[in-house]
Amino acid sequence: MTEKLRVALIGTAFMGRAHSHAWRSAHRFFPLPLEPELAVLVGSDTGRTRERADVLGWAESTTDWRAAVARDDIDVVDICVPGYLHEEIALAALAAGKHVLCEKPLANDVPSAERMTDAARDAAARGIRSMCGFSYRRTPALALAKQLIDRGDLGAIRHVRAQYLQDWLADATVPMSWRLDASLAGSGALGDIGAHSIDTAQWLTGERITAVSATLRTFVDRRPQAAVGGELGGVADADAPMAPVTVDDAAAFTAGFSAGALGVFEATRFATGRRNANRIEINGELGSIAFDFERLNELEYFDAREPRETQGFHRVQVTDAVHHYTEHWWPVGHGLGYDHLFTNQVADFVTAIADGTQPTPSFDEALDVQRVLAAVSESAANSSTSTPVNRGTQ
Amino acid sequence: MTEKLRVALIGTAFMGRAHSHAWRSAHRFFPLPLEPELAVLVGSDTGRTRERADVLGWAESTTDWRAAVARDDIDVVDICVPGYLHEEIALAALAAGKHVLCEKPLANDVPSAERMTDAARDAAARGIRSMCGFSYRRTPALALAKQLIDRGDLGAIRHVRAQYLQDWLADATVPMSWRLDASLAGSGALGDIGAHSIDTAQWLTGERITAVSATLRTFVDRRPQAAVGGELGGVADADAPMAPVTVDDAAAFTAGFSAGALGVFEATRFATGRRNANRIEINGELGSIAFDFERLNELEYFDAREPRETQGFHRVQVTDAVHHYTEHWWPVGHGLGYDHLFTNQVADFVTAIADGTQPTPSFDEALDVQRVLAAVSESAANSSTSTPVNRGTQ
Amino acid sequence: MTEKLRVALIGTAFMGRAHSHAWRSAHRFFPLPLEPELAVLVGSDTGRTRERADVLGWAESTTDWRAAVARDDIDVVDICVPGYLHEEIALAALAAGKHVLCEKPLANDVPSAERMTDAARDAAARGIRSMCGFSYRRTPALALAKQLIDRGDLGAIRHVRAQYLQDWLADATVPMSWRLDASLAGSGALGDIGAHSIDTAQWLTGERITAVSATLRTFVDRRPQAAVGGELGGVADADAPMAPVTVDDAAAFTAGFSAGALGVFEATRFATGRRNANRIEINGELGSIAFDFERLNELEYFDAREPRETQGFHRVQVTDAVHHYTEHWWPVGHGLGYDHLFTNQVADFVTAIADGTQPTPSFDEALDVQRVLAAVSESAANSSTSTPVNRGTQ
Amino acid sequence: MTEKLRVALIGTAFMGRAHSHAWRSAHRFFPLPLEPELAVLVGSDTGRTRERADVLGWAESTTDWRAAVARDDIDVVDICVPGYLHEEIALAALAAGKHVLCEKPLANDVPSAERMTDAARDAAARGIRSMCGFSYRRTPALALAKQLIDRGDLGAIRHVRAQYLQDWLADATVPMSWRLDASLAGSGALGDIGAHSIDTAQWLTGERITAVSATLRTFVDRRPQAAVGGELGGVADADAPMAPVTVDDAAAFTAGFSAGALGVFEATRFATGRRNANRIEINGELGSIAFDFERLNELEYFDAREPRETQGFHRVQVTDAVHHYTEHWWPVGHGLGYDHLFTNQVADFVTAIADGTQPTPSFDEALDVQRVLAAVSESAANSSTSTPVNRGTQ
Repeated sequence: MTEKLRVALIGTAFMGRAHSHAWRSAHRFFPLPLEPELAVLVGSDTGRTRERADVLGWAESTTDWRAAVARDDIDVVDICVPGYLHEEIALAALAAGKHVLCEKPLANDVPSAERMTDAARDAAARGIRSMCGFSYRRTPALALAKQLIDRGDLGAIRHVRAQYLQDWLADATVPMSWRLDASLAGSGALGDIGAHSIDTAQWLTGERITAVSATLRTFVDRRPQAAVGGELGGVADADAPMAPVTVDDAAAFTAGFSAGALGVFEATRFATGRRNANRIEINGELGSIAFDFERLNELEYFDAREPRETQGFHRVQVTDAVHHYTEHWWPVGHGLGYDHLFTNQVADFVTAIADGTQPTPSFDEALDVQRVLAAVSESAANSSTSTPVNRGTQ
Repeated sequence: MTEKLRVALIGTAFMGRAHSHAWRSAHRFFPLPLEPELAVLVGSDTGRTRERADVLGWAESTTDWRAAVARDDIDVVDICVPGYLHEEIALAALAAGKHVLCEKPLANDVPSAERMTDAARDAAARGIRSMCGFSYRRTPALALAKQLIDRGDLGAIRHVRAQYLQDWLADATVPMSWRLDASLAGSGALGDIGAHSIDTAQWLTGERITAVSATLRTFVDRRPQAAVGGELGGVADADAPMAPVTVDDAAAFTAGFSAGALGVFEATRFATGRRNANRIEINGELGSIAFDFERLNELEYFDAREPRETQGFHRVQVTDAVHHYTEHWWPVGHGLGYDHLFTNQVADFVTAIADGTQPTPSFDEALDVQRVLAAVSESAANSSTSTPVNRGTQ
Repeated sequence: MTEKLRVALIGTAFMGRAHSHAWRSAHRFFPLPLEPELAVLVGSDTGRTRERADVLGWAESTTDWRAAVARDDIDVVDICVPGYLHEEIALAALAAGKHVLCEKPLANDVPSAERMTDAARDAAARGIRSMCGFSYRRTPALALAKQLIDRGDLGAIRHVRAQYLQDWLADATVPMSWRLDASLAGSGALGDIGAHSIDTAQWLTGERITAVSATLRTFVDRRPQAAVGGELGGVADADAPMAPVTVDDAAAFTAGFSAGALGVFEATRFATGRRNANRIEINGELGSIAFDFERLNELEYFDAREPRETQGFHRVQVTDAVHHYTEHWWPVGHGLGYDHLFTNQVADFVTAIADGTQPTPSFDEALDVQRVLAAVSESAANSSTSTPVNRGTQ
Repeated sequence: MTEKLRVALIGTAFMGRAHSHAWRSAHRFFPLPLEPELAVLVGSDTGRTRERADVLGWAESTTDWRAAVARDDIDVVDICVPGYLHEEIALAALAAGKHVLCEKPLANDVPSAERMTDAARDAAARGIRSMCGFSYRRTPALALAKQLIDRGDLGAIRHVRAQYLQDWLADATVPMSWRLDASLAGSGALGDIGAHSIDTAQWLTGERITAVSATLRTFVDRRPQAAVGGELGGVADADAPMAPVTVDDAAAFTAGFSAGALGVFEATRFATGRRNANRIEINGELGSIAFDFERLNELEYFDAREPRETQGFHRVQVTDAVHHYTEHWWPVGHGLGYDHLFTNQVADFVTAIADGTQPTPSFDEALDVQRVLAAVSESAANSSTSTPVNRGTQ
């Protein structure tokens, strides 16, 4: 009988729903050494949380995250709430000896992320694992890209071109939400989606961003209060009072990488028609890869060592038994969707817990993303002047 | 408390795995009036079935399908075994008053499909529901295509162009399997994947195929016995004995439709590089749709009523809250994968059971596909001469 | 000083215009041993022909094709008129010792094409060259495909999938034109565009179509007489009298090839939204190619011998110095257009004339296409029954 | 009889070849009021220039540009030489009362461009026309984009995303050429290809770039001297001496636009696999357009005012009789290539000369691009600090 891994999940919205599916499904597809058990769901409203727990498959529900985190029969705390709440919960969970999976970005600012990382390091010494939920790392196509780059198939990297384009705020009548309030979300497009691009770029290249030159832009600075809220979108009353948007609508920056690559990054929720175009292209001396999450099962790969006559970007369907993650899913050509990223992520996290190894991305890696975010904000506030990423004494 | 719907699933391979995930997941995403309970998994080997039941989440396991089907505490029988077994199980299940979901093609020949359809009609009179698993109908992009055609946005249909292209048999060393044995599978590419194209084409257009002119082809007529079998693929020993392939490797046919459209169909497992290209394009007087399962979250839609200047196929990301099925899943641009089709299918089936309505495709509709398959085989055996689809006195 | 090659071109419409540009341009890009001189343009109306000659760059104009063809100072006769006129002009030109370039299809029926071919063979014995204008052979991407297939990179060919899709007749109010009159055009979509697919398929594979099973369809059988005519399209008066359409609007057929490949062909002018989708895909044991003229500078190439992990269709930009034809044009990535096919064609034709070699496609090859067209028509008239291509005693 | 417009073309390389084809062809497709006559080609070597004149269709040849420019029988001077030569020739030509077409970028620095612009303004007062060769403006797809934006179909513009990606320098063994020498070319990727992006962006949006934050990068700072030179590429001897590369290999910058749009620009010759990806995407409040020159006949257009259900980027084939430029070319779906841009450009230039109107882009507009280039260089030299575009007292 496989031993259980009892999970408390905090958060009942979009991410809570995605994580629940992953906790329910991972051991059905991956041969996991520990079987996740959906022990308790934590929300802010008693009735609503109970109802969500039933729907999502959690045995219990509560509104008291402190109690949940402190329970002896909980092994893992999964944090799916807005960024301003991450630190307090993560610190409590780690102190209580729970493995922690925390949604990205790790925190709303660098000092908070540093405290979390310090706590994670201490906990690691006691065998407690922590990981940040940069879920796009679990896209099979990007896992293949990583593999190609790691083994040198692209040669020296010259260009990183990352765009994360959404359009759900392009309409100025879309109402206010927590994602548009700096005190809750930390930043806007930058931290919400640009953080993914930064993590993906550093992870894929194995290089660190050393300096950035950035611009932030808020196109619509006041929005109506939501009457009926969706997490992304929602509907406002015609006569709803207006609230100030205190985050960036778009972020753009160039970046230098530690081994010499030149990066160009853009994150926006105003790219009309681009629903969720999380794109990255990397050009190396010997080859290139290109990816767009709108076609998540494909990797474009160019190999300049092939005969010139038939060179061209390969449209690789990364859905095969020879590919990481998809070996556990369906026959080739039967693609995966968004939620599979989370299931793959849980599989990796549970495996690391069972093996006693450090899951990735660690809080350290997530802190590094936070430092890049801080440099971006600083550069933007300083006439886009090139601003080094402050990594202290590292 | 939602009432339970207790399911027995027969079959532990590819389809059994996909259906299990669907039965586990549907009520987590759709507000179902009945909650599926994974009661019993039926397989052919006791130990292996027990192990699969644990992995896939079934409470019990057995190798005795007759007993499982007869159990009072079972409400639904889900048939995921090769076609030659469908009839016997379906008849027993319907006789026992169980709702039946049966994988496609409905049977290996028309008489068998007719007996099943008769039984399903009798059962329907007693409130027992039955449905055939043409799962591609549950692709959100195709559901949108159906909606556009139904409301007349394409006008009179002129062309149906359907291809189902795979390549897993292109290598002549891929070993023999049940799918290549006519006595077990009925036919080859024709029934396995061509049947999907036929069903999709008739369903989308609302027209029936009236006559076909067909060619069947077997490129590799002997294959080594599998040493280690995958369901699609596998590995053969170098000195494995050879077995005859008794089904078609490829099928091609033109078709007339009841309201005048001209169809061109092709199904093959020898289209090197096409992993699972289930494609359909429909051209009408006012517009067209095109779909390829390799990009399952997209529908191409052309509207000839638009200003000519900006006419062009729309690449619609069918992942939105305004789209059927995806309204229950993720935010726009966060696509679905192969398994979601089965989850959507279970949601539809369970809803129909609860509502007391006929789920689609009914056995009648699946029988109709079977009749087209028979006409294809007959035409192919008769110098491709145009052969009417025999629908008896209908 | 390069010797001149004096050309008489017969026809002033779409093809006359394209050929004129080619005759003007070929020696500007290709190092030709003979320099084409645009000597005389032949049309049906004196004033109009004079005006077109000025615009298109011809020194003289006339309405008397017999006189033009008989002139001692003419070396080449280029036939760009409807099919029913091909034979008489070609025979006169060949008899007069002129090299002949004749637009496709070679003739409106097989006997006519046979007489032309006989004459061409006789003329060849006297050093007179003749060629049929299957211009798509001059697409660099298809020239690359040919090269790959010829050297075995696709292995044994299993599938040929050719579609030529246009939509300019989908609107039932588009007026009558010579292309819709069987007495002038021979056939409809079949001969006009399907002929291209047949030629391309036989040329690329090096195999011959041995038998076909076909369906022809006319969706709109009466159209208004054109008031203002475009060659493809035009405008009809509201009260224009109606004229019968006597050709096929669409043709579909399956085909067997001499070395065992299975072909599926479709030609139509009713594929709403497909402007000029001349597509071909060929699947072999070792690889595949796919092409669509709507993206004429690209060839998709799949190589099954590559590591499975990064297999995928290469999107080859066939615009490089290493590619046939494009070595004479622009730097890589600076694509060609439709008219370049004709310029490339003239370059090949002039080179063959100067070298004293047989240009391709010869009238023999074009006759073979005609025989396939005849078999298609015969099969369609005979309940789609499989009909061998009649090649006489060959 | 159409009056002649006698042209002197200076430059015999890539651009000279493209312009020659355009001067030969424009009046064959466009109903021009003046017929270009290829009077004299000017090169640097007598024999080579004579040979190129014969090949390219010029009546005379010379190596003395001053004499050619001064000839009474010359109406137009077309400047196709490296940037450092533009000013002297243009000034002489304008002083001599010749209409001037000058390749881009207008000059190698702003003061030079200002002197040219002053001269052009003076000449304009005397009825002399001048234009800068930003040829991509003549792409039908971009002409359509311009039309959509001008009439408000995109609404307020939020994002401009322009990339010009090539890869011909990615290989460090590609030899030195004039394009890599700052004293001849002014800058590298920035002026050569980035200038196109800047012009396209300002032209399409009708907005001006007000400030930039930029990075320039040289990846390979020494290259072997070319033994056999191609203009883009070439071959070096193994023991060739090395020469310093004094220009940028890549440029990246963010930009603010006058009406509030945020721009992200990138120009590089190191994007392995991207042969000539001149891309631009513009997102507005109501819609978006996207373009990639590798598919030059297509415009992607998104209209957010359409029903959400079928929203999606239209793949518009901009090859129709309803589209600008292509109305003069071939039937829809029969695409254009690279050289057609130059033919379209000549048609526009000749028409403006005949009509006595100012052709676009004027030297003023080209000067404006030069000022943006200068701001980019200045920002790059100043830690990427946001740098206003200096437009003097404008």
